[in-house]
Parts: sequence; structure tokens; C-alpha cells
Amino acid sequence: MTSYKLILLRHGHSEWNAKNLFTGWVDVDLNDQGRREAVRGGELLVEHSLLPDIVYTSRQKRAVNTANLTLAAADRGWIDVKRSWRLNERHYGALQGKDKAQTLAEYGEEQFMIWRRSFNTPPPPLPDDSEFSQVGDPRYADLGDSIPRTECLKDVLERMLPYWESDITVDLAAGKTVLVTAHGNSLRAVVKHLDGISDQDIAALNIPTGIPLVYELDENFKPLNPGGRYLDPAAAAEAIKAVANQGKK
Amino acid sequence: MTSYKLILLRHGHSEWNAKNLFTGWVDVDLNDQGRREAVRGGELLVEHSLLPDIVYTSRQKRAVNTANLTLAAADRGWIDVKRSWRLNERHYGALQGKDKAQTLAEYGEEQFMIWRRSFNTPPPPLPDDSEFSQVGDPRYADLGDSIPRTECLKDVLERMLPYWESDITVDLAAGKTVLVTAHGNSLRAVVKHLDGISDQDIAALNIPTGIPLVYELDENFKPLNPGGRYLDPAAAAEAIKAVANQGKK
Repeated sequence: MTSYKLILLRHGHSEWNAKNLFTGWVDVDLNDQGRREAVRGGELLVEHSLLPDIVYTSRQKRAVNTANLTLAAADRGWIDVKRSWRLNERHYGALQGKDKAQTLAEYGEEQFMIWRRSFNTPPPPLPDDSEFSQVGDPRYADLGDSIPRTECLKDVLERMLPYWESDITVDLAAGKTVLVTAHGNSLRAVVKHLDGISDQDIAALNIPTGIPLVYELDENFKPLNPGGRYLDPAAAAEAIKAVANQGKK
Repeated sequence: MTSYKLILLRHGHSEWNAKNLFTGWVDVDLNDQGRREAVRGGELLVEHSLLPDIVYTSRQKRAVNTANLTLAAADRGWIDVKRSWRLNERHYGALQGKDKAQTLAEYGEEQFMIWRRSFNTPPPPLPDDSEFSQVGDPRYADLGDSIPRTECLKDVLERMLPYWESDITVDLAAGKTVLVTAHGNSLRAVVKHLDGISDQDIAALNIPTGIPLVYELDENFKPLNPGGRYLDPAAAAEAIKAVANQGKK
């Protein structure tokens, strides 16, 4: 039976995770904890003999560097690489650069949770003259003026899916084990699509950082193991709880 | 006037440079000095505003990691990446893993220099059961049994050129600034081709490690600046002397 192997890996802690700021498209690097998580991710791949043939990343350094460290730890730094803004984190609009706890206090829990978790409602757009804007960033030159100023998860899903279909599924169909190293929300979009999660239920789904999540897919790219399998299930369960409490006091 | 930009970067010192061993296709990593050279290479790119749009590497970790460090230092880790065995170092055959000074003493200077520098004469082939053989290495699975057991510079040129034509020139023609992060002999092959250096004269050409070498090319990919331009000419001149003396006592 056909069984394609897809490995999802959310980048580890960044300099702004530690500061509890909304990051989005701001190009913040991993911190030491995040670098350790990336190396551990590579060790888990080796322990489970799940060695990718190709890696996909976003254009953001916390995902790029996670891929580099994870692959170096698995002695797979030599595999092919593809990058796309379509795997970037959700653009957090005017929230980018803001403190999560302060935003919660200022706008109240209802509005805060809508911005964080609603499928359809993006935060207010980020002005182009903000220090946290990516307008004019050479890495998004190909986007021209269609570069996002804010996104909800639905927007992320809609920009991710064409790339899933044009590139990732093509490599899967060629029999390659594919590693996707990306972000909380771009990976939630992938998982929503794979597992057919409803617009409502996706709000409750959290993907822990640094723990490879493995899907085996049939010839239609439908999961043979719905929900996937974390390579360190105990650590994943614990981390999922912690993510759910982010921004809470 | 058309002016395509090509940047060549030879990886820095590796664990085996320090031990004075022939490396070839053995997958030895950079040492601390090599990592510093890679970072300095990235700083030179920034100082000269020469920022690559795409990077090419071999499938060997000393080139892969040089590219990662160089690009991180230039904040260009997000660019597209292509890798090929066609950019690998020359396969040193039965010399792989051998001490350079000891080989010189054992075989004499004439034979030693033929193996190191002749265009046409490869060293004896490496047996497949050698601990230094790459036969069976998954990164070269696509080569099947045509994986090299030894190579002279002519062999390197002949396997490099098809990739130059099929991929690198295509990206140059698209107006991309191309960085090629590779090895002493695969880069000598590129330079021989670009500058039309004779089979005899190429013996005397040494490319220093860690210093970007920039070519501006016309629409036929011929150098507008023959010989290229090192971004740190003084350091390059000094390093070229040191490479020429390698293996000498």
C-alpha cells in the first residue's frame, strides 16, 4: 500500500517567545532554547530512522535555522531545500511587536482570543510605515504590493494550499520523505487540511515546538494515521498544554 | 550592458586541513577556523553590497555549512538553495584519508605533484571496501554504480560543466546574483572554464579559502573582469601563497 511520509516540525523558541511578543512576519531568530530544540528534533529523526529526502522552510530565519540545525544533527544537511513565503507564520497585523499579556489586558480576553484563534477574523492591518512591516523587504520582492498586512488562519490556509499542491505533494508522490520546517499557524493550516478539521475545531489545536510530527499519507494524500504521530508523545502532550496557556497570566 | 554577477566561495579550513590529510569526497566538517572564515565571507558580501539571490553548494557538509554560516552572517539565509554532487571536491581516489606529508615522502615530489596538480592523471582508485569510500552513501544514491572512485581535474571539469550549463547559467541569465559555495578543485574547474586557462597553466592556480571571488559576466557568460576580483585582495594574495606550499615541509 502506498504510504508517503510527511514530517512537520514547528520551530523552537525564539527571542520574542521569551519576551512574550506577537511575532508574525517579523524576522526574529531562535534563542538558545530554540536552537537546542532544533538539535533535539534532528536526534529524534535519527532515533526513529525517519530521514528526510527534501526539506521545505518558510523564508523566516527561525524556520531556516531550525532546518539547518535539525538536519545537521541528523547528518542530512546535504538534502535539497525549498523555501517559500507561503509557509511563513501568520501575519499578525497591527499586533506584530506588541506584548501578548499587555494586549490581553488592553482589549480583553474575548477580543484577544478572536485575534489569536478565530478562523476568519484578522487583526487590524499593520501600517506600511511601521517598524514591524515587511513592505520593501527584498525577500518578499516577488510579492510586490500583494504582500500581506494582516492575516487570519483562513488567509494562511489559502496561501499555503497552492504550494502544498504545486510542490510538496509532487515530492511526496515521487516517494520522497518530506520535512516541512515552519510555524505554529502555517503548520496548523497543513494539519487542518490533512485531518479535515472544521473551522471551529481548529481553534483548539496547538502544535508543540521542536517535536517532529509524522503523517503517513495514502495516494490521495489523506492520513493513514489521522492526527499524526509525535516522535516524543510525552513531551508533545506537555508542550501542547503550555502553548494553550500562552498569553494567560 | 549585461553584467551577470557570480560569486565563488571556497569553504574554509576543515578538521582534516588541520591534520594535513587528503579529504576529497570524505565528508569532513569545518573546524572553528573554517567556521570563522565562513562568517567573515558573509561580512565581506555585506561590506561590498554583493547579496546573492540563490546559493549553490556541493553535497558535502563543509560546503553546506559554509553556505549556511556565510548567508546567516549576511542575513540572506532565506534565499533559494540548490545542491549537487557535481560541485563536490575532486575525488582523491586511494589518497583519501592519507597524510599529505607522508604521501610526499613515500612517493616523492614528482608523483605527489602529478596526483595533486596534473590535469589528466587521477590517483589510483579507492577500493569500494575502504572506510573512506562513498559507495552506498545515500546522498549519492542517484549516481548508482557510476559514483567516482577517483578523479583528475579533467574529470571534475567534465562533471561540473553540464550543471553549470543546465542550472547555474540559467539563474545568472535570469538576473540573479549567484553564490557558489564549493571546494578547491570544483572551483578551479569553474575558473578554468571562465578564464579559458590552459590544461598546463591551471596547475599553478590556487583559490584561497573563505574569500569571495566575484566575476562579472557578459551575456555569453564570459568574464568582463578576467581572473575575477577577490573581496579582500590582500588576504587572498597571502592565502594563495600558503595553499601553494601545502604538503611541503
